[in-house]
Order: sequence, then C-alpha cells, then structure tokens
Amino acid sequence: MDFKFSPLAYVPFVSVENMIKLVNSIGVEVFMSELADAIEADFKRWELFDKTPRVASHSDVGVIELMPTSDGDMYGFKYVNGHPKNTKEGLQTVTAFGLLAEVDSGYPKLLTEMTLLTALRTAAMSALVGRHLAPKGSKTMAMIGNGAQSEFQCLAFKAVCGIETVRLYDIDPAATAKCAENLEKAGVNVVSCKTAEEAIEGAQIITTCTADKQYATILTDNMVGDGVHINAIGGDCPGKTEVAEAVLRRSEIFVEYPPQTRVEGDIQQLPEDYPVTELWRVMRGEAEGRTHARQITFFDSVGFAVEDFSALKYVRAKIEGTDFFEHLDMLADPKDPRNLYGMLS
Amino acid sequence: MDFKFSPLAYVPFVSVENMIKLVNSIGVEVFMSELADAIEADFKRWELFDKTPRVASHSDVGVIELMPTSDGDMYGFKYVNGHPKNTKEGLQTVTAFGLLAEVDSGYPKLLTEMTLLTALRTAAMSALVGRHLAPKGSKTMAMIGNGAQSEFQCLAFKAVCGIETVRLYDIDPAATAKCAENLEKAGVNVVSCKTAEEAIEGAQIITTCTADKQYATILTDNMVGDGVHINAIGGDCPGKTEVAEAVLRRSEIFVEYPPQTRVEGDIQQLPEDYPVTELWRVMRGEAEGRTHARQITFFDSVGFAVEDFSALKYVRAKIEGTDFFEHLDMLADPKDPRNLYGMLS
Repeated sequence: MDFKFSPLAYVPFVSVENMIKLVNSIGVEVFMSELADAIEADFKRWELFDKTPRVASHSDVGVIELMPTSDGDMYGFKYVNGHPKNTKEGLQTVTAFGLLAEVDSGYPKLLTEMTLLTALRTAAMSALVGRHLAPKGSKTMAMIGNGAQSEFQCLAFKAVCGIETVRLYDIDPAATAKCAENLEKAGVNVVSCKTAEEAIEGAQIITTCTADKQYATILTDNMVGDGVHINAIGGDCPGKTEVAEAVLRRSEIFVEYPPQTRVEGDIQQLPEDYPVTELWRVMRGEAEGRTHARQITFFDSVGFAVEDFSALKYVRAKIEGTDFFEHLDMLADPKDPRNLYGMLS
Repeated sequence: MDFKFSPLAYVPFVSVENMIKLVNSIGVEVFMSELADAIEADFKRWELFDKTPRVASHSDVGVIELMPTSDGDMYGFKYVNGHPKNTKEGLQTVTAFGLLAEVDSGYPKLLTEMTLLTALRTAAMSALVGRHLAPKGSKTMAMIGNGAQSEFQCLAFKAVCGIETVRLYDIDPAATAKCAENLEKAGVNVVSCKTAEEAIEGAQIITTCTADKQYATILTDNMVGDGVHINAIGGDCPGKTEVAEAVLRRSEIFVEYPPQTRVEGDIQQLPEDYPVTELWRVMRGEAEGRTHARQITFFDSVGFAVEDFSALKYVRAKIEGTDFFEHLDMLADPKDPRNLYGMLS
C-alpha cells in the first residue's frame, strides 16, 4: 500500500467481498462460534458499556437508525435501515454498515459492511443464549421462517449447541427449499415440514424468524409443549410480534436490554413491569437460567448495540495480518494540523 | 468500474485525495460561494428539517459525536471527534466523515471525508451570514486566530462579501506567517499584526477563531467599536467562549439553532432567555438583520447539522460525471434477498 499522506489517516475497510472472504477463510460455523464467545465476554462486562438508545429517523416507508455504544476503550456504531417495501423494487429491506473508533483519539479504526455481519452476530447471539438456556442434550431445532436469517441460525446452533437436525417450515415452500438446499450442503440433517406444528414435533429448541406483520401469531399456546427453549427473532419492532401472549406467560423470559425489548420485542404484549431476566446476569452467574426440565425458556431477541460492538471488535482482530481489507483514505491528515488549507495546494 | 454484485449496492465514496481534487477543480472560492448559496437555500426550508440533537459520547480526553438530520427526502449524518490532546501525539484534534442516504429506500448514496468539507462549510456559513449582516461595502476583515480554519474564513469572505484586505493576528507568530503565506498566494491583501487591537483597526468585520480555553476573552469591551460585524467561530462547546459578555450585550445576536447555541456558543455566558435571532428567519426575510450603521451584529457560530447536510448534497451533485469518487462495495446485495447466506458460497 502506497500511503500518499500519513498511514494514521487511513481507515481499514472491509467490503462485502472481503467479508465473504474473511468468513469463508475462518469457516462460517467457527466464525459464529468465536463471535458467540466474544459477545459473551462483552455481556459479562455489561456495566462498562454506554447504553445509549438508538437514534431513529422515521419516514412513512421506513426507518434509518444509528446504534452507538462504547466500553470506554472503543466506540462503535451501526447504521441500519429498515424498508419493508424495498424488496418489491429489487432492493434490500435492510442494509447496514458499521464503524469502530478508538475512544482515546477519536480516530476510526474499522469501517465495515454489516449486512452479512449482522446476520452472523444475530445467529451467534441466539446460539449463545441457547447454550445457556436450552435443555441439555438438545439435538433438534424447529426453524419457523426460512428467510435470510434462517441458515445462519441453524448453523450457529449446530456449532455452538450441538444441534444435528433442523425441522424447517415457511409459509412459502420456495423459502424452505432454498434453506434446505443450503443447509444440506453444510452437513445438517434437514426435515422440510408442511406446517409449523409439524416442524415443532420432537424439537427441543423452537426458533421463530418471520417477517410479516400479518402473521402475528406463529406460535399459539396449544402448539408449545413444556420443556422447550424458544428463540424468537422476528418480533423486533413496535407492532411486530410472533408469539401468543399465553406462551409468554407460561415461559421464563430472557432479554438483552429491557428498556429496548419492552418496546420492540414480543413482550410489548405484556405489562411494562412483567418480570424478565437480563441475559448478562445469567452469563455472569448472577441470575438463574433454566432451573428445571419442564420449564419453557424464552429469548425475546431484538438485537442490541453491544452485539454489534462485539462483532466489530471481532472482525477488527480477525483481519489483522490478512488481505481482507483495504485502506480507506477517509481522514485528512496535514503534516501541520494548523495548515489544513495547505492540503489544497 | 467492474461491478461484482449489483451496482445498486455500491456507495460513491469521496476520499481526502478526491475531495482535494474536487475543490481544486471547482476552485476553493467558487466552491465556498456555491456552498453558501446551498446552505442558504436549505436554511430557507428550515421547518422541513428533522433537528435531532447531536448524540455525544464523552470521555476524559475527548468526545465522539454523531450529527444526523433529514429533510424528508435525504438523510445525512456526520461523525466527528474532538480530542484537543491529539496534536501532541501527532494526530488531528478533529476528524470527520459523513454519509448521505435516501429516505425512501434507506440506501446510502454518498460517503465522504468531512474534515476538509467541514472547514469549507464552516467558512461558507460565516460568509453567508456576513452577506446578510456585515456593513454594506465592507472591505477589511480582522482575522484573530490563524489556525486551520483561518484561510478558509478569509477566502470565503473574499468570495461572498467582497473583502479585499485581511488583518491577521495570532498569539503564535508562526501561525500568522503560515496564514499570510497561504493567503498572499491566493491574491488577498494581508496585514500581519502584533496584537488583536492592531488587527481590529479599520476592520468592518471581526472574525475570531481561537481554540484554547485559557484565552477566553479574545475581544474585550473596549476593543470593539460600533458598527462592526463580529463572526465568532471559536466559542463552540460548553466552557469555551471567546468574547466578553459586555460585547455580547452591546450586540444584536444571531444564531443557527438556539437550543444548541445556548449550550455551546458564546451566549452560554448570558441568561437562557436572552433574546437572539435565528438566521433562517433573517434569510427568509421574516426577521430583521442589520437595521442601522452603528449597530454591532454578532454571529455566535457553533456549526449545525443542516450545514453538513447542505455540504453533503452539494458534494454529491458536484461529483456527478467526474472521476472524483470511487465505488465502495459496502452493501450486501444478494440476487434473492432471502438468500443472504448464498453470498457465502
């Protein structure tokens, strides 16, 4: 690399292409397994994080959000949009990128695509929670909703929790076929199912990851038996829920960050003071996880800035010594800081 | 450009090197003059903007801020840090970059360096305000503080307000010498002065742009005669002011956005309800600017997100059809949005 100005002014940038290369060089399962450990390590340092609420800019058709956080050493934020109508126009519903900076200098240290990385961290977080809460010896997972997140979820649970068989269901059989094909190539036993009820049969873990608001009750009360772990991904914004209130009331509920989950998660159906357990306390051993075999544990996943922060730090560590990044000439760095104008001549 | 994925997924990126080329191709004075007009056009649409407060993450040694805004059509934000101790370590005090996105799709449409661009927009805003408030026929400006912003200020006032002579002063003669050399090359009459009092002699416009907290009273009451326009740039964060309270009280005060200026500007010295005039109202003709020749007009400049937004839009328009940008592979764009995992194989 030929540095025209100071090397200090260059920001490592991981493009989509390089993220794909990085993930493939590590292996997607190892990547998510290591990332799960990185998230757990950060959740155990929970009180160090500056837990700012997301900054959202809403319009009639979507939302653009900035999600910043800091542990006092590094600062990170993610830009992410959500525009459900985009797919009809040949665009992605969600695009994301993120930045990691050094608190001590304020200098950016990593810029990276985060659409793929968010999918990886979401699945890593789910599997990490599964490791703490799912019944011991779980081998089968129901995967309801076979969209963009589904393969990542199945492979993360395989890598982190030892899941061997996934039972797939989606209202669109083409989505199930796509997911099944991808997973079979990855060495997972796949059972494609015709109903959600069929998918749940014999599963110790039930993952719901559906997107549409109109299918708001993916899991009804009579579908869910005792002793399972529910990993509910799709209920993640106001007005969007997946699971019947009765299921929630039979479960022990675990969340990332209550002020956010009570607004965005499935528990928006419950009273504001309904008891929930914060996952960082379980990971630190300060709160109980699963206490008996017949208990239903429920992870009301919405995605939290600390998980993105862990993912940014993980990627930054992993690209070191590789070719999987470029140097981005993003920061003006005149030799004499007072002579910024001199850069123009 | 060879697009590996969809061209929709590529984000135009203006590096520092390309920003320099762009500014030089347009000419720095024309650039700031056109940018002043762009800012004025946006200030006239004031009520359309989503005026979110900045999101600041403070540490013992500095601050990292995100400054978002939107006009309902486009969304922009700037990342900017402020670390005064950085210069001692060979780093910049301030680094900045910005992003412009489409509200309708949430897709980023421009990523750009903003250290140079912020210097240009700050000076363009000052000169724009000067055009509205400075005495008619002003030909001489005092420039107190000859740091990184000083040349931009002088050249913007030359281009926008017809200033012919600048009178420079800085506590560090080396800064004055640097500024004088740059400006003489740019065709400005320069008078280097030994004191602030000397710099002010015969000036119709007084610009203060100093950085250090310990020199908190750059302009004392007895230094400032009637009938001038004061352009105060340096008082721009809590605890940092440049001008004696008595000068403020003799002046008509104009600000960008009162809720921000009352915390960050020189008027933090005044009571919270002290009357100030919003510049967008002056630009729209809804409030009076300068009403008589002996009046002191005072622009308490702190920098506002709408100015960055105008600058991002201006740059986006100007790079069209040029080579002054790269295509950044920042957004994952699988052919089938539900097959994000398929991008890995």
